[in-house]
Amino acid sequence: MTIEFIKTLGIPVLLDAKRGDVGGTATMYAKELFERYGADAVTINPYLGLDSMTPYLDHADKGVFILCRTSNPGGGELQNLMLDNGTRLFEHVAQEACTTWNYNGNVGLVVGATRPNELQRIREIVGQTTLLLPGVGSQGAEVSQMMSAGAGGGMLVSSSRSIIFASEGKDFANAAREAALATRDEINQYRKAA
Amino acid sequence: MTIEFIKTLGIPVLLDAKRGDVGGTATMYAKELFERYGADAVTINPYLGLDSMTPYLDHADKGVFILCRTSNPGGGELQNLMLDNGTRLFEHVAQEACTTWNYNGNVGLVVGATRPNELQRIREIVGQTTLLLPGVGSQGAEVSQMMSAGAGGGMLVSSSRSIIFASEGKDFANAAREAALATRDEINQYRKAA
Repeated sequence: MTIEFIKTLGIPVLLDAKRGDVGGTATMYAKELFERYGADAVTINPYLGLDSMTPYLDHADKGVFILCRTSNPGGGELQNLMLDNGTRLFEHVAQEACTTWNYNGNVGLVVGATRPNELQRIREIVGQTTLLLPGVGSQGAEVSQMMSAGAGGGMLVSSSRSIIFASEGKDFANAAREAALATRDEINQYRKAA
Repeated sequence: MTIEFIKTLGIPVLLDAKRGDVGGTATMYAKELFERYGADAVTINPYLGLDSMTPYLDHADKGVFILCRTSNPGGGELQNLMLDNGTRLFEHVAQEACTTWNYNGNVGLVVGATRPNELQRIREIVGQTTLLLPGVGSQGAEVSQMMSAGAGGGMLVSSSRSIIFASEGKDFANAAREAALATRDEINQYRKAA
């Protein structure tokens, strides 16, 4: 019902589903997300390799954001591992994502806004590829650092908890609106500077 | 309803959910799997690091099988990447899983039965840790090779499609039973040999 309402407003829906499964299961997950829920874009996990991602990527009219360098505290434990060719795992994912995996031109990457150094490195690798940037607000990412590090291509900034839970009182709707507007204004301030 | 029926027979339920999410979402996924569905064990994805897995691992009375080396065709694309310390990514996951991540002694690993060489290597790393082995049957794993490579600790062999889809006719129930019994007998033959 929430998605249906959002779509009546003409707002695209991105489901942060983080799916990662194979074969028939992945095919049915893609069907669930794109057909049942009507999502315009989704997030998926790359650990199982390309054949686990094709059921989503094959939907050329949908956006597919692949987890690359996540914003959670332990995100770097595997993602920052150094490979024997001198690149880190998340750099390898970024490189594959914008080349081999982008056969339909619908790939984006999930990069934690809390990690400006990694964000800047990923932007160098992927050119203008759109990046989904969670972590603004309650996870403490600095908007100024994020906007500077991510400049050069599409950025889709996600702030969830600091807006949804702006107030737990009866003023929750207005408080959420105020938090969303304040976040937007802060982002736009640095867009102009860039 | 299927799970409820299975539990009336005293058979443990392992949900191959392959979850991989963070914070509050992971906590609610764990609640869904263990409380709503009553699963005894689940599968999860390690790409997001330990803090994405603790909501499951904290359930000390439940089994948590972490994806390590999956049986799908592209499973090796990331999992077999060589790190700068001379170990492959799946070996690193196996090492972490049976040490740091196993603080409640409830960790298992998912290892494709289709990969006897990697299976043998993982067994060397993890000692007696229980391995969940999908890929027998329609994915073509050789039971003899799997039993030899995985010997030395717990093995939970999963054969799904070749049993579920043993027949699409009216004899589906009996055909599934026959396929399950044949698979069991083949496994037991090599257990005795080992």
